[in-house]
Amino acid sequence: MVDAAGPWVGGLLGSVEERLAEVGDSYGALLAEHAGATIAAGGKRLRPLLVLVAAGAEPLTPAGLVRAGVAVELVHSATLVHDDVLDAAALRRGRPTVWASAGRGAATAAGDLLFAAAFAELARNERADEIRALSRAGSALALGELLQREDAWKADVPVARYLHRCELKTARLFEAACTLGVLEAGGGPQEAAGLAAFGRRIGLAFQLLDDVLDVSGPAERTGKHRGTDLLDGTVTLPFILARERSAALAAVDPRAIGSPAQAAALCDQIRATGALEASREQALALVDAAKEDLPHRDTAQRRALELIADSVVARYA
Amino acid sequence: MVDAAGPWVGGLLGSVEERLAEVGDSYGALLAEHAGATIAAGGKRLRPLLVLVAAGAEPLTPAGLVRAGVAVELVHSATLVHDDVLDAAALRRGRPTVWASAGRGAATAAGDLLFAAAFAELARNERADEIRALSRAGSALALGELLQREDAWKADVPVARYLHRCELKTARLFEAACTLGVLEAGGGPQEAAGLAAFGRRIGLAFQLLDDVLDVSGPAERTGKHRGTDLLDGTVTLPFILARERSAALAAVDPRAIGSPAQAAALCDQIRATGALEASREQALALVDAAKEDLPHRDTAQRRALELIADSVVARYA
Repeated sequence: MVDAAGPWVGGLLGSVEERLAEVGDSYGALLAEHAGATIAAGGKRLRPLLVLVAAGAEPLTPAGLVRAGVAVELVHSATLVHDDVLDAAALRRGRPTVWASAGRGAATAAGDLLFAAAFAELARNERADEIRALSRAGSALALGELLQREDAWKADVPVARYLHRCELKTARLFEAACTLGVLEAGGGPQEAAGLAAFGRRIGLAFQLLDDVLDVSGPAERTGKHRGTDLLDGTVTLPFILARERSAALAAVDPRAIGSPAQAAALCDQIRATGALEASREQALALVDAAKEDLPHRDTAQRRALELIADSVVARYA
Repeated sequence: MVDAAGPWVGGLLGSVEERLAEVGDSYGALLAEHAGATIAAGGKRLRPLLVLVAAGAEPLTPAGLVRAGVAVELVHSATLVHDDVLDAAALRRGRPTVWASAGRGAATAAGDLLFAAAFAELARNERADEIRALSRAGSALALGELLQREDAWKADVPVARYLHRCELKTARLFEAACTLGVLEAGGGPQEAAGLAAFGRRIGLAFQLLDDVLDVSGPAERTGKHRGTDLLDGTVTLPFILARERSAALAAVDPRAIGSPAQAAALCDQIRATGALEASREQALALVDAAKEDLPHRDTAQRRALELIADSVVARYA
C-alpha cells in the first residue's frame, strides 16, 4: 500500500517518522515522557500516508509535505491523548496511556501541547490555507467529541446524528490530510475538493469499522475489551441497528450496562441480529463510493488511494 | 487605561468583543452553551488590549489586529476551561464553570474547540509568523501546566523553577499578544523583541500577583476561597518564601492540607511571615523593569503600556 504511489512515499513516511520523534523530544523531558510514547506507539500513520499520496507525485522539495503529514499526525495524537483522559482508558495499543501513567492533568496538558505543536509545525509552510484546513479539522474533532458527550447514554440516537458525529470526530481529519497534500503539491480548489470528498468518505468508513470492531473484537487484535463503547455510554451504529431488529435490545438502557461481562454478552446479542454485517456494509458502500468518484485516470496515485480506501475497511477481516 | 493610547483602542476592543461573541455562536448551540459562557464571562480583556496597544497606532484596516486580539483571548479562554477541568473548579468569576455545568468530557472538548478556533481566526491574517507566535505560546501554556502537575505537592520547589513555570503558564501569552500587535502593525524584529520582553515581564508579574491574591484574598474580590492553590497542591511563591522564614511552615506537608479552613489558617501564617509583601515586591520590580526598558519615547503608546503594566499589580490593592 505504501509503495503503490511510488517508492518516494515510503521514503517520505520515514521522514515524517523522524520528525515526529524530534518533535516528541523538542519540548523537553516532560513531553518526551508523556506524549512521546503516544506519538511513538504510532499505529499505521494512515493520515500522513494520505497527505503524501494526495500530493500525487514526489515534490522537488518535500519538506512542506512532510511537515503537513507531521502536523496531521500530531493533531491525531493530541486527540488520542485527550480521548484516553475522557474515557479513563488504561491501555492504548497494549501500552499504558498517558492518563494511566501520568494522570489526568498531565494528559490534558500533553494533548494541548501536541495540538499546539501541530500548528507550530504547519506554520513553517507559510500557507494560511493549510492552517485553515487543519484548524477546521481541529474544531470539527472537538465538536464531534462534544456531540458524543451530549449523546452519551442515549440509546435512541438517530443514525443521521451518529453519522454526523463520526464525520466531525474522524472524517474531517482524513479530509484535511487529503486537502493538505493537494495544496502542498500546488493543486487548485477543484482538485482539492475532489480528494477532500474521498478523504471524508473513507474517514467515515474508518470510524464505522472502528465501531464494528469494538463490538466484534477480537480483543487480542483491537487491544481492548469488547463493548468498551457500550460501557462508556457511546451508542454506535451496531447498537442503533440492532435495536431496530430486536425488541429485547431496544429495551436495554445503556446506563444499566455495568460490567465488561455484561457488555460482552450484549455484544453477542448485537452480533446475533446481523447488525455488524449491516454496519460493515455501510462502511464498504462508503469506500466504494469514495473510489468511484476518484478522477478517472489510471495513475499510480489512483491505485494507491484505492488501496488505502480498501485498507480502512479490511482491518482484521 | 483603555483610552490612553487613543480613542481607537476602545473602538477596536468593542470589535474584539463582538467577534468573540460571533465565534461563540458560530460553532453551534453546543459551544455557545458550554464555551460561550466562558468567553462572555470575559474579565478585563487584558490580552487583546495588549495586542491593540502594542500596534502603536490605529491601522488603516484594523481587521487583522482585531483577529489577533480575538485569537489570543480564545487561547486564554481555552486554557481557563481546561484549568477548571483539572482543578475541578465549580466557579469562575462567580459563575459555574463548563466543568461544573457540562462535565469533564464536554469541558475538555470545549477547550480544544476554543483552541482550534483561535488558530482558525488567526489564519485569516495569512501570516505564518503570527501563527508561529501563537502556537509557541500555546505550547508554552501546556508545558507550564505539565510542569505544575509535575511539581504538585512538592513543598521544596526552587524559586527559579516556580518562576519558569509562571513564565510558561502565563507570561508567554502576554508576550505573544505584544508580538502579534507589533507584527500586525508592520513592525520589525527589533521592535517586536522589545515589546515581547515587556509582555513577558508584566505577564510574569501578573501571575505572581495572582498567586499573592490566592493567599491574601479577600475571597469576595477574587471569587474563590483563600488557599485554593494550597488545596490543589500548587506551591507558589508566597508559600516558598514563607517556608524560608518560618520553621513551622517549612515543616508543613502540602498533602496534609485537607480542608478550606486549614488552608485559610495556613494563609494567615504565610501572611504573618511577610512573604506576601516580598512576593508583591518581586512583581512590582518586574513591572518597573518592564516599564524602564520600554523605548524612551514620550508617546501615547508608552503611557498606555505603563498604565497596563501598573494595572497588573494594582488589582485589589
